[in-house]
Amino acid sequence: MTETQATVDSVLAMLRAQPHDEEQLEQLALEAHLLPVGELVYLLESRPETEAAVLFRVLDKDRALGVFESLPSHHQAELISALRTPQVAEIIGDLDPDDRAALLDELPASVAERLMHGLDADERAMTTTVLGYPRHAIGRYMSPEVLTLLPTLTVREAMAHVRAHAEEPETVYLLPVVDGSRTLLGVVGLRRLLVADEEALVGDIAHEAVRARATDDREDAARRFFGAKLLAMPIVDSEDRLVGIVTVDDAIDILEQENTEDSARTSGSEPLRRAYLSTPIIGIVRSRIVWLLVLAISAILTVQVLEVFEDRLDQVVILALFIPLLTGTGGNTGNQAATTVTRALAVGEVRVRDLPRVVWQELRVGATLGAVLGALGFLVSGLVYGWAIGTVMGLTLLSICTMAAIVGGLMPLVAKRVGADPAVFSNPFISTFCDATGLIIYFTIATAVLGL
Amino acid sequence: MTETQATVDSVLAMLRAQPHDEEQLEQLALEAHLLPVGELVYLLESRPETEAAVLFRVLDKDRALGVFESLPSHHQAELISALRTPQVAEIIGDLDPDDRAALLDELPASVAERLMHGLDADERAMTTTVLGYPRHAIGRYMSPEVLTLLPTLTVREAMAHVRAHAEEPETVYLLPVVDGSRTLLGVVGLRRLLVADEEALVGDIAHEAVRARATDDREDAARRFFGAKLLAMPIVDSEDRLVGIVTVDDAIDILEQENTEDSARTSGSEPLRRAYLSTPIIGIVRSRIVWLLVLAISAILTVQVLEVFEDRLDQVVILALFIPLLTGTGGNTGNQAATTVTRALAVGEVRVRDLPRVVWQELRVGATLGAVLGALGFLVSGLVYGWAIGTVMGLTLLSICTMAAIVGGLMPLVAKRVGADPAVFSNPFISTFCDATGLIIYFTIATAVLGL
Repeated sequence: MTETQATVDSVLAMLRAQPHDEEQLEQLALEAHLLPVGELVYLLESRPETEAAVLFRVLDKDRALGVFESLPSHHQAELISALRTPQVAEIIGDLDPDDRAALLDELPASVAERLMHGLDADERAMTTTVLGYPRHAIGRYMSPEVLTLLPTLTVREAMAHVRAHAEEPETVYLLPVVDGSRTLLGVVGLRRLLVADEEALVGDIAHEAVRARATDDREDAARRFFGAKLLAMPIVDSEDRLVGIVTVDDAIDILEQENTEDSARTSGSEPLRRAYLSTPIIGIVRSRIVWLLVLAISAILTVQVLEVFEDRLDQVVILALFIPLLTGTGGNTGNQAATTVTRALAVGEVRVRDLPRVVWQELRVGATLGAVLGALGFLVSGLVYGWAIGTVMGLTLLSICTMAAIVGGLMPLVAKRVGADPAVFSNPFISTFCDATGLIIYFTIATAVLGL
Repeated sequence: MTETQATVDSVLAMLRAQPHDEEQLEQLALEAHLLPVGELVYLLESRPETEAAVLFRVLDKDRALGVFESLPSHHQAELISALRTPQVAEIIGDLDPDDRAALLDELPASVAERLMHGLDADERAMTTTVLGYPRHAIGRYMSPEVLTLLPTLTVREAMAHVRAHAEEPETVYLLPVVDGSRTLLGVVGLRRLLVADEEALVGDIAHEAVRARATDDREDAARRFFGAKLLAMPIVDSEDRLVGIVTVDDAIDILEQENTEDSARTSGSEPLRRAYLSTPIIGIVRSRIVWLLVLAISAILTVQVLEVFEDRLDQVVILALFIPLLTGTGGNTGNQAATTVTRALAVGEVRVRDLPRVVWQELRVGATLGAVLGALGFLVSGLVYGWAIGTVMGLTLLSICTMAAIVGGLMPLVAKRVGADPAVFSNPFISTFCDATGLIIYFTIATAVLGL
């Protein structure tokens, strides 16, 4: 028995055992890598559809293209339809997203396009799992029905082509120009085509395409989309071959989802998967309970801080009266700063490298706000509770506002820096942090001023 | 001297005195209303441009149309250019927006279209003031360069028309169909035109237009735009005459501005007018100080609540330790509910009339969250500080979470009901409210359980 034959047998055995977890699929990929194209074609033709689809999916991109092109066309069609079955989607979908990205190479553009062809939005969502795009990749939102033009067409021929196929694609208003191997050369807007000289060549009137890789993050891609005021954006694979197109309504959906996510996260809850009124109670509870618990447990810090100062509280019980006012003001100041910076990050006005400028900005804003509130606090509490308490309140408000504005401005940048959603770390987390820090500031100042 | 002559003299005197405030303009409008069209035409032709423009602007819509059409064409052009001058914009712009809307009738569609023609975005912003649209009206975002079709054109003629004028308008992908008096009959997409029979009539292939009134609120109009997955939306006046078109990039700008506004308001600050890092400190302070002061002053309520319970605090100083944890948890729960409901309102999932359902939903969610946190609070604080304190903590967390979730869910609906931005009333306001209410709950439960 030759070595190849042994490998074929081993691959066969693995396929029969229906590989389901990452380890088995990885092993299958390794063994398949050792086989020549001819043997792979034989295996794909001889195995049941689901097994063939799984084997095909673990091939690396170049071999997948070679194998696919060597298959007879009816086998190609069978393979495509098998890749769309729920069974295959399940096997692939069971993988951890990171493992999936590591294990599964991109499918060749021609295969990906055929795989996605003619599917509705739900089917497409399932199929993109098979394609192996990460959860928030722009590739998950693309439509594969793209009307393309060859650069060698004249404008008249191109217009005839558009007229003949205007019913099918997602859009006819932006036309990607590709060569024979689907490499994206540029784009032509339909308006440009309408006014161009009929004998001009498409290749000459096309312009550079604003594009996205299928694996690009959906929010980055959508922002680029809106920045360039596009109606559609071509999506390419790692070799710049066209795999689909994203239209403006997809980009708007993405923006809306991101905004909903940001707004939920800002208040320490997870976005709901369906409309609020139709979400079962348990779903809403689940979206809120984790952060609420995390925050409540973090808030134990405030209990411990107060315990440290318990004897001062016992001496001057009046100090307790101002606790909610002071922590509330700190929280509010911190939230204002965090929300401004989070939004500025989202729309791209601020980058992580602007951190020192943000801190300097918030230091001055916080100190100004603190000076105003502190002056007011000094007067009001001084008049009611005496000037010693007034001094404590004035100094504490000044310090707390300055601290909270800086912390609020910093947190979203730190979150972004460590790769987290800036919104996650923000408001409730900042409130809790500022509560504990604010109490330390408060009692330190009180101890000093009142001589406790 | 005839009565008309007296009125002409009086109008002349008012124009010479350069009316600048609401009262003067109102008086001018009243007197002008008494004059026949012929006299108005005479006045418009004989007065300097700025005076003519102001007089023209205070005419009601029907008379404005009659007068405009009676003017020789070079005077029409002069009047249009005078309406665009900064002087006229200033006179109109100085009016209070509500007065402006009450005083100035819409301009006739044909005049409005000429007025806006050929202006860039900045000039347009100025000119929409002259048109009298309220600050957040969709009319302020429209472009007047619209390529329209008559319903009697054949598809071939229409395509030739589009080709001939494809360079000028904002978009050629949606073509409003209008009759001779600019009344909007429907729309045709360019794609539809491309595939239709060349001899078909535009009127027969047009379909109902999703439209907006120029005075409609920008956010409502933008949501309708996205809901219908449009690329452009025709804008009409009160008589359904076409005055302009809003394209998808305008609608996206509106959505982004609304999202920025909502996110700023959620944290109790006003949206900044320019990029964060380039906004001067005083601008940022101004965007935050008002709410911060309002909230700090409201927070004096918490001081007063605590003062009422000061003797209990004096007896059991340990109760003070939990104040920040309890108020923090209440604030977090309230914010989660408020953010969810605010967002659901913004995207149209929840209406004001759903108030009872929202309350019932949040009552159950809040009670569930409170039960979990309460059980945990009972155990942890019971173990450390004894079961009496544990009982107080457990019951308080249960009650505070329920109360806060209900308040958080209610507030955005109440704000919307009274015509305020739901985001304004939300997070910091809810925190402060829940702080005070939470403290009352806390000390009431403590008094009962501990027998103080």
